[in-house]
Amino acid sequence: MAGGIGSRFWPLSKDNCPKQFLDILGTGKSFIRATFERFLPVVPAKNFVVVTNAAYKALVLEHLPELRENQVLCEPMRRNTAPCIAYATYHILSQCHEASIAVTPADHLVTNEREFQRVIGEGLDFVEHKREALMTIGIKPSRPETGYGYIEVDEVRDGIVPVKSFKEKPDLETAKKFLAAGRYFWNSGIFLWSSDAIMNAFKSHLPDMVNLFDEGKPLFGTDKEQDFINRQFERCENISIDYGVMERSHSRYTVAADFGWSDIGTWGSLYTHAAHDGAGNAATGHAVLVDTTGSVVNIEKGYEAIVQGMDHCLVALRDHSLLVCRLDDEQQIKHWVEKL
Amino acid sequence: MAGGIGSRFWPLSKDNCPKQFLDILGTGKSFIRATFERFLPVVPAKNFVVVTNAAYKALVLEHLPELRENQVLCEPMRRNTAPCIAYATYHILSQCHEASIAVTPADHLVTNEREFQRVIGEGLDFVEHKREALMTIGIKPSRPETGYGYIEVDEVRDGIVPVKSFKEKPDLETAKKFLAAGRYFWNSGIFLWSSDAIMNAFKSHLPDMVNLFDEGKPLFGTDKEQDFINRQFERCENISIDYGVMERSHSRYTVAADFGWSDIGTWGSLYTHAAHDGAGNAATGHAVLVDTTGSVVNIEKGYEAIVQGMDHCLVALRDHSLLVCRLDDEQQIKHWVEKL
Repeated sequence: MAGGIGSRFWPLSKDNCPKQFLDILGTGKSFIRATFERFLPVVPAKNFVVVTNAAYKALVLEHLPELRENQVLCEPMRRNTAPCIAYATYHILSQCHEASIAVTPADHLVTNEREFQRVIGEGLDFVEHKREALMTIGIKPSRPETGYGYIEVDEVRDGIVPVKSFKEKPDLETAKKFLAAGRYFWNSGIFLWSSDAIMNAFKSHLPDMVNLFDEGKPLFGTDKEQDFINRQFERCENISIDYGVMERSHSRYTVAADFGWSDIGTWGSLYTHAAHDGAGNAATGHAVLVDTTGSVVNIEKGYEAIVQGMDHCLVALRDHSLLVCRLDDEQQIKHWVEKL
Repeated sequence: MAGGIGSRFWPLSKDNCPKQFLDILGTGKSFIRATFERFLPVVPAKNFVVVTNAAYKALVLEHLPELRENQVLCEPMRRNTAPCIAYATYHILSQCHEASIAVTPADHLVTNEREFQRVIGEGLDFVEHKREALMTIGIKPSRPETGYGYIEVDEVRDGIVPVKSFKEKPDLETAKKFLAAGRYFWNSGIFLWSSDAIMNAFKSHLPDMVNLFDEGKPLFGTDKEQDFINRQFERCENISIDYGVMERSHSRYTVAADFGWSDIGTWGSLYTHAAHDGAGNAATGHAVLVDTTGSVVNIEKGYEAIVQGMDHCLVALRDHSLLVCRLDDEQQIKHWVEKL
């Protein structure tokens, strides 16, 4: 899934180059490239399917030149994750009769790739054999994070366990209770299932969406697929896979993984994961920081900056756009960009 | 005089485009262009002589296309105002036997041009008839400014009066006394004199410099002038006209002018003279200011900016360089730029 526009990272991510195509952490790879390479030991390149906005098709192929053009599926508009996954599933089933499928956002950070591959491999084995299972990768929480949804389990065991419930983003007090209880994991948004399991779940919980896609079933995998999607996709309910399927299902599993995961969803999370100087600043690019503490400074290549007298601020310059703000207020970025 | 590099206005002014060539206030004209037009009713275009660094000759001719190339004199290196003025005087005397001369920086602001022209016209009449007089334009002070030198007079009268003494930049307490006394004016750095008066003053007070220039006297105004200057100029004493001549002279005059003058020497002074929004911000360029007060935001054309949560700060983006700092600390800009 690589269709997001990542407005929370403005000006680094913008409509014309959203977060998944950026190397925000300076690792030398964009998020989508890193995601591809992270899955490559488990999934052969020919089996990847990228769903993105039509506007980003060329960018996807640029970042993943190993893919053929027909491995990049184009949404004509954003309709959240359930229609995205339904589209991909119909496309995959046009290529093969059954499949074990991993669904993943293309803009997350994983620092322990070997452990990631182990967890994904085990999970795919599990869903291949337990063919009704819908599995979500849980992440062992390291702090009372209020920015993520949580997965509740009945009892903590090693390995794959049933899900008791899904919890929306909690307030801080609740998040602290979750952390203390030890039975709550962060919802990574990474899913594993067999094609049978997800198709049956769509049929049970989102039958209208199934009817919409069934109308064009013979067209998937042909040169008429895109036309059909362009016509039908708008009619899909705008709903996430979490609300639309996972919360309504009774065969849900998770595993408490620990592979250095972050969705890097905010400048603050970037700050958490980036290297800091002695004054607690995370700076990238050609910048001199003077009397500045606890700040994120992100300067585009080819530019130079002096940042002085700032505390817990964000200074980001990219693509002819500059953001100077307090890190504490970054959740407002979207509104400021609208004003601009 | 248009040879300065204006490092205090980084990143707007830089070595490759110093302050005199910028339209910092957004008036539609660079400072040098505005200075030229301000003098044009008093001095015909063919009588202008611009002294600048060799690196800026093309820029001068671009901003003042009315000038011929030989009206732009090039210093091979910076040597302060006394050698600059001596060079120009020798050049002028190669073109005519006597002249009334106005010497002016090319990067000041004047808001009442008509009053300016009246004052300059009267002053030039004065020095034409009182041929030994060295005249400095004084400015009636409006605040206890510590960033300017002061001119002391014995008694305050309308019109042109003798100078008692020149005072260096005072501390705040002294500046307050100057303001209260009413006998102290800001030193604008604009001078008026006859060619006889300034040549005699150079001979009396800077005889070594006169000897240096005399060696090439027949070469001024010829195609050998530049070669001669390139060889000799380095040997000139690095001294200002104020220290080298004015403070040592006994025939000094001034006038207390009031034509809306500022040397716009700092971001703070720019803030003083620019238009403010309701929150006391002076912003130019495409910028959205949120929860920001008393700040200067200066964004280059073609860029956009969001500035949030700042108070008494400076955000300036120009020529691939960004400065974010506290306005109170702007006197340190030069040091930060050196670090960068």
